[in-house]
Amino acid sequence: MQESKVARRPGRRNRENQKTSESKSSVAPAGAMGGRYKPLLDQEVDRIFEAALIVLERTGIEVMESPCRETFRKAGCRVDRDINRVFIPPELVEKAMNTMAHEVLLAGRTPEHDLNLGSARVYMGTGGQAVKMLDLNGNVRETITSDNYHIGRLVDKLDNIHFYMRPVVCRDLENEDIDVNQFYACLAATNKHVMANSYLPERVKDLRTMANMISGSAEAFNKRPIISFTACWTVSPLRYAMETVEVLDQAIEHDIPVVISSAPQAGATSPAALAGTLVQLLAEQLSGIVYVNLIKPGFPLIMGCVPAQADLRTGAFTGGSGEFSLLNAACAQISQHLRIPIYNSSGISDSKIPDAQAGAEKSLTGLAAALAGSNYIHHSAGFLESLLTVAYEQYVIDNDINGAIMRMVRGIEVNDQTLSVDVIHDVCTDGPNHFLGHEQTLNLMNTEYLYPQLMDRATRDDWEASGEFDLRQTAIVQAKELLGNHWPKIFTDELDNDLRKRFNILLPKSEMQPDGFWDRFIS
Amino acid sequence: MQESKVARRPGRRNRENQKTSESKSSVAPAGAMGGRYKPLLDQEVDRIFEAALIVLERTGIEVMESPCRETFRKAGCRVDRDINRVFIPPELVEKAMNTMAHEVLLAGRTPEHDLNLGSARVYMGTGGQAVKMLDLNGNVRETITSDNYHIGRLVDKLDNIHFYMRPVVCRDLENEDIDVNQFYACLAATNKHVMANSYLPERVKDLRTMANMISGSAEAFNKRPIISFTACWTVSPLRYAMETVEVLDQAIEHDIPVVISSAPQAGATSPAALAGTLVQLLAEQLSGIVYVNLIKPGFPLIMGCVPAQADLRTGAFTGGSGEFSLLNAACAQISQHLRIPIYNSSGISDSKIPDAQAGAEKSLTGLAAALAGSNYIHHSAGFLESLLTVAYEQYVIDNDINGAIMRMVRGIEVNDQTLSVDVIHDVCTDGPNHFLGHEQTLNLMNTEYLYPQLMDRATRDDWEASGEFDLRQTAIVQAKELLGNHWPKIFTDELDNDLRKRFNILLPKSEMQPDGFWDRFIS
Repeated sequence: MQESKVARRPGRRNRENQKTSESKSSVAPAGAMGGRYKPLLDQEVDRIFEAALIVLERTGIEVMESPCRETFRKAGCRVDRDINRVFIPPELVEKAMNTMAHEVLLAGRTPEHDLNLGSARVYMGTGGQAVKMLDLNGNVRETITSDNYHIGRLVDKLDNIHFYMRPVVCRDLENEDIDVNQFYACLAATNKHVMANSYLPERVKDLRTMANMISGSAEAFNKRPIISFTACWTVSPLRYAMETVEVLDQAIEHDIPVVISSAPQAGATSPAALAGTLVQLLAEQLSGIVYVNLIKPGFPLIMGCVPAQADLRTGAFTGGSGEFSLLNAACAQISQHLRIPIYNSSGISDSKIPDAQAGAEKSLTGLAAALAGSNYIHHSAGFLESLLTVAYEQYVIDNDINGAIMRMVRGIEVNDQTLSVDVIHDVCTDGPNHFLGHEQTLNLMNTEYLYPQLMDRATRDDWEASGEFDLRQTAIVQAKELLGNHWPKIFTDELDNDLRKRFNILLPKSEMQPDGFWDRFIS
Repeated sequence: MQESKVARRPGRRNRENQKTSESKSSVAPAGAMGGRYKPLLDQEVDRIFEAALIVLERTGIEVMESPCRETFRKAGCRVDRDINRVFIPPELVEKAMNTMAHEVLLAGRTPEHDLNLGSARVYMGTGGQAVKMLDLNGNVRETITSDNYHIGRLVDKLDNIHFYMRPVVCRDLENEDIDVNQFYACLAATNKHVMANSYLPERVKDLRTMANMISGSAEAFNKRPIISFTACWTVSPLRYAMETVEVLDQAIEHDIPVVISSAPQAGATSPAALAGTLVQLLAEQLSGIVYVNLIKPGFPLIMGCVPAQADLRTGAFTGGSGEFSLLNAACAQISQHLRIPIYNSSGISDSKIPDAQAGAEKSLTGLAAALAGSNYIHHSAGFLESLLTVAYEQYVIDNDINGAIMRMVRGIEVNDQTLSVDVIHDVCTDGPNHFLGHEQTLNLMNTEYLYPQLMDRATRDDWEASGEFDLRQTAIVQAKELLGNHWPKIFTDELDNDLRKRFNILLPKSEMQPDGFWDRFIS
């Protein structure tokens, strides 16, 4: 908020925010340890794991003839060629779990944005990929490449969005241009870690080259991988999507950390029983962990549990329900039990606009996953209409929601000082009978308490006097302010020129500077 | 929704809701067992308890000369008359904890509304008391007695609001008339359990008489207490409010279950360190548990932990923050550790209107308290502007939020059937590769999944076609429908006549019938 030149909202709120903005990250720290919410009993986690092993051995997975299937066969899996199913024995799962990575670094361009995935450490960020943009005038349009750049600039300034997963589909580009251009647009906008996918297996090599150039060298990238991939390599139930397996193979080949993501919808592509959905999802994930560890033991792999729900009245995807929350939180618990870094989704809403429904659904799903200790909670900024629409002001709103959630993940420190026995005694027996001016209060006011950027705590009179803005209106003001003023210079001119020489970069330089920005932006 | 005559919202949503409304309560059952979220470690709970004992013995509580202080003195407490402080030794706390009630029944007029407080069973409901009403036209006015009646009718129809705590101050009445009339207005509106306070100690006897008349006899009330009291008998830090102690004494005398409620604001009336606020609050509560158990061992007493937070930039009360959530969830965990039934507050928002902020703050605070297993979560329906305003549509919205929360509290059932190993095998090897028409899916669709009353899951096109309502607008339509149509007959004519003969009931009979209702209602 230091750059405020176009702030329209007068009064106390902005002054308050400035006063406390410096200490914010320590109040609600990225990577705080979750795991205090355990939706399942330990023995229930064991039963789900055992059931998943049975499914892998008895039901197996559908894999068409391919190098992938050959890898499974050579490792000792039975293959039924008539029905194209691979049956994975428990011994192979056990072996993979002995070789797999328990901790995965997804690096920021600068170390303060590093994500140390593993255990119950919690990070929240954007997800992808939307096909519609609800713009700042309230109009809906198709998403384009430059959205990935401008949303990235916004995210760069929002402390409670910890990573930048490419948010929208470049609907203005041909398939062969998307991979390079979506990564470029994201990497040029923020120093936070960038994750996206690759549509074409043959582009993975190019993306690794681009990442090396930005990192400075191949060795630098290997030490601190600033990009990662998500590969949705299964089609639930239990079937491999062979074209995505090729992308996965390439990511492994080129040592780019990868999420293997499966996204069953309970009642449609996995059992309606929530426990059954967890079993199937875990079976899918374990098959992928076996596969990747057969190719490169210890590869930086993240399990991608993206359980969702079909509304069984209509069959439609739904992402804001209590059942959705339970499934995602349970996955976090299972991942900790198995010591596998996890990526999952929460902070979704089925609402079409940033209204009370969006506020509620995002909070319920996001809080459950975070308290359960999910490592990489994607989709937790910007999304509306299940996963179809993003809105600039929603990123700003979600930054505040994520802040409150991360404050809760940090929890309550209990020690001799915080127990405050002497402070209470002083105030009640020698003091003024209140704590407002006490030394402890002054010391803790900026470390114990997170002051929201947007959430309004004014009296009704003050709120009315300052315009009666609802949260969406306030967020639009802040989004405009940030978008108008924050133009981070992530690449040197030399690097940018080198990238543009080497790759067919379609985002014009003119899009990456403030001159005439609003004229282009809202049209 | 069966009574729909004035529904304005067309299409799928209403049909869907009707189809599934019957099974709703079992999907998200009142009294489901929470406690899966534990913000504190067990040893941290022990340290907080031990610190509270030190505070009681060393710092003590301020109690003016009174029968109350005499009770403490006779039980062996040291009393310092110069500073009016009572010092409670740990032995007395231990003794009280051996005699106190671990389970408390707050009965509904009908058994399906019974609240069995204790352990980690969760109930969510209204709180009090607001001084402003945001009406269905968006105007703010002072609250009046009849609001307690009309909100009660609304709550009577909302399944995820489990009890009815008197929501508003009767600003149209003199103090001497409030006690009887606020209870009457609530009890006449719903069969759910009613809780309120008494302004005047001498009215408690009248309220017991009223309750006996409604229950049928004193014995019937003793078995199934349909009303209860909340007594905010402390002024934090650690000072007794002597006029409220008199009300508490009367409630005990007349065997009306009672909540002893203390409401410190961290940083203002309790330490800024969250752990210190828990210590002080627990000390206040333990003193009350000692006191009540000295008078009547085993009395149906509920600890009333209402920790809140001062925004330390302004000193203002705030009720929607992450810190607030942590404090209330921690209280629930402490109460289970000590086996004391608990009342606390969540579902509050500092927003002035039902916007995204209200949706977020209510969800974050409500979910944390519920997952932590708080027994009686008051304030979790209807409130806005911290605790100053209520709105009809907010009750309807909160009913949906509470439903999702209670679905999450119910959790995931793990057993041979739900693990679905055979279902997965059937679908993948003999079946259609999806679960939509599977027998398990059809069997579970109305027991595993809660279908919200309001939250919109339509596509953007369908949503636009049906009017582009945000959640608040949809809730206003439903609130109008329910208020216009639901006129429950709680009292027989004979009972109502008897009550009106015995007490000075000021709510006119004309207010309790639909004729001309909207003319009176929105003016």
